[in-house]
Amino acid sequence: MSLQFQIEASAGAARARRLITPHGEVETPVFMPVGTVASVKGVPQDVLEELGVQILLGNTYHLYLRPGVETVRRLGGLHGFMAWPRAILTDSGGFQVFSLNELRKVTEEGVTFRSHLDGSEHFFSPESAMEAQIGLGADIVMAFDECTEYPADRDRARASMELTLRWAERSKKYFEEHKNEVPWSSNGHVGTAVPTWSEKTQSLFGIVQGGNYRDLRRESAERTIEIGFPGYAIGGLSVGEPRDLTREIVESTIEHLPADQPRYLMGVGTPEEIVEYASLGIDMMDCVLPTRAARHGLLFTSEGKVSIKQARYSQDQGPLDANCGCRVCRRYSRAYLRHLYASNELLAQVLNTIHNLSFYLDTMRRVRHSIRLGEESRFLSNIWSRPKP
Amino acid sequence: MSLQFQIEASAGAARARRLITPHGEVETPVFMPVGTVASVKGVPQDVLEELGVQILLGNTYHLYLRPGVETVRRLGGLHGFMAWPRAILTDSGGFQVFSLNELRKVTEEGVTFRSHLDGSEHFFSPESAMEAQIGLGADIVMAFDECTEYPADRDRARASMELTLRWAERSKKYFEEHKNEVPWSSNGHVGTAVPTWSEKTQSLFGIVQGGNYRDLRRESAERTIEIGFPGYAIGGLSVGEPRDLTREIVESTIEHLPADQPRYLMGVGTPEEIVEYASLGIDMMDCVLPTRAARHGLLFTSEGKVSIKQARYSQDQGPLDANCGCRVCRRYSRAYLRHLYASNELLAQVLNTIHNLSFYLDTMRRVRHSIRLGEESRFLSNIWSRPKP
Repeated sequence: MSLQFQIEASAGAARARRLITPHGEVETPVFMPVGTVASVKGVPQDVLEELGVQILLGNTYHLYLRPGVETVRRLGGLHGFMAWPRAILTDSGGFQVFSLNELRKVTEEGVTFRSHLDGSEHFFSPESAMEAQIGLGADIVMAFDECTEYPADRDRARASMELTLRWAERSKKYFEEHKNEVPWSSNGHVGTAVPTWSEKTQSLFGIVQGGNYRDLRRESAERTIEIGFPGYAIGGLSVGEPRDLTREIVESTIEHLPADQPRYLMGVGTPEEIVEYASLGIDMMDCVLPTRAARHGLLFTSEGKVSIKQARYSQDQGPLDANCGCRVCRRYSRAYLRHLYASNELLAQVLNTIHNLSFYLDTMRRVRHSIRLGEESRFLSNIWSRPKP
Repeated sequence: MSLQFQIEASAGAARARRLITPHGEVETPVFMPVGTVASVKGVPQDVLEELGVQILLGNTYHLYLRPGVETVRRLGGLHGFMAWPRAILTDSGGFQVFSLNELRKVTEEGVTFRSHLDGSEHFFSPESAMEAQIGLGADIVMAFDECTEYPADRDRARASMELTLRWAERSKKYFEEHKNEVPWSSNGHVGTAVPTWSEKTQSLFGIVQGGNYRDLRRESAERTIEIGFPGYAIGGLSVGEPRDLTREIVESTIEHLPADQPRYLMGVGTPEEIVEYASLGIDMMDCVLPTRAARHGLLFTSEGKVSIKQARYSQDQGPLDANCGCRVCRRYSRAYLRHLYASNELLAQVLNTIHNLSFYLDTMRRVRHSIRLGEESRFLSNIWSRPKP
């Protein structure tokens, strides 16, 4: 077994578990910060460790283009390359191919696309996306899927779902035949600070699609489970649909996923959303929101959102969030953070990102704590119980 | 006494001393990192502390424009505003007015200049520059001077020197009358993490000018000393003149400065230069080189300069500098640093800056160690004794 998923506690539909990967344990429900090209923008790895990050997400599309899979593989996979000894998950590249390429061409075989960096032409198939992810060497990798666009009518959503199912089978077949080629498996680890896991390999998760049709989502879940994966993701959401619809689809899809395996909701969400989806039984989530918003001066606090660029903070001696114990809130005033942002100082992006990640990780820590206390009925209110000013 | 300068050891002309400021002790010879607008670009204050930074430099011109002196003053001066409890030195604004303003207008009264941010018109006089520096509240502040351009003929250099001498008198007069208005003096400290020094005030240093004329430098030194300051800076160098000439002027000027007071060489230099000037008896230096070069991918190592953008490092698993113990060299490979730079990742600028600062601070630590060992004859070779590859 390369992945274990141990039961700790539950509260209603929510569950607190422990996901054991070749590179360490991950307490779930977990929020995974996005480190697109092997870096969470602006934050050194030791700070991520201090924040309590247990698993990072890397983007296969970006890493495939730069620095290239072969470079990462030779340097020990992502763990060795970026000197990150804890768990990593990579996406399949499918989402970026769809979101960053207006000129992509999809065939049964795969997707032809152009690099957003230099316009060069590339091709991803289920097989080549698996090959790339094996070279990158994340602990958890994702089947190559088509992220169905929103809106999509029923015929389009079904055709896209069927393609994703065929690609899931091909992904699994290639992965099973090549998973021992991971850079940190029997070949021995070539990087630093990462233990050798000679008997462990990566784990491949399947992805449920089906647009916003509950019956298609159910069929997609059942047929993906039939193919068989150690974990399942819900894809194709948070792509422009109304939030009520997202929640409805998530809730109905969860019903059809195995209770004893991890459930990963891709690309979600706001602080309120990650709490809500954890309460519905989601175990893993990722989103660029905390890091991207930070770089634009939008900060999440226990008393709501703060747009630190506003002049109202220019004389504000208080901490960004009086209820936050992160190294930013412990040391700096809102006035200083506002000044750094207004002056376009690098440190603004660094400190803002550290705080927003801290806020997200603390939020999930409180969610896990509430679940362990079994506080189902007061679940959401426990998380957001702090007095408003 | 707001400043003490205690003798520790000497080796030839070089001296190891201890500068005691209202915000802590500074071991000299010292290199002062530049934190232009109250931030060393990209580096959080706790990392600066960990690197062993004992004194930072702030730029009065930039801080006066943004966030403004009154804002900084209200928030406890620079120490409170930027949450930096250790020593700070501010320049007078003179150098930036001259280097960033082609349309400046100099009169006996002062300098009219335009903001590089929005083109608005401003005026600095010795009095207003002192007022600004008292509001910013650095431990050491600088007299308002005219930084003589290079080249300057003898008449121009003399006229400029005479102006600087008249401005030095006016600077001292205003400073003496207003130094108790410093934000952390008897009014009590309004920021955090900074001790109250109710009996201490700032210290004002004089600046020696005189272009590249040894006799003018001597006259400038003697007449500045006559006005009387607790420390003296050598200004107007590193402004385009040949390095041999810089060294010659520094060496000849030092002869005319009091042995028992700090000597500050402004705007210098490369790692080799800071070692050399320390060996000549300079106690304090500052330069944007380590931080600015870092942001452009130019890194200083014990084996020479490394331009990390070069493709030759793309597969290089070794640390940036095998002889460096900084958190960057301990953790990351050259290949990873090259990838971050090539991908224009924020983290490149953060990590590169941390390493270059670490290299500069380590260099000065080794200089001080050599002086304490009294190793005059092998002074320079001790610092650069590591085997070349």
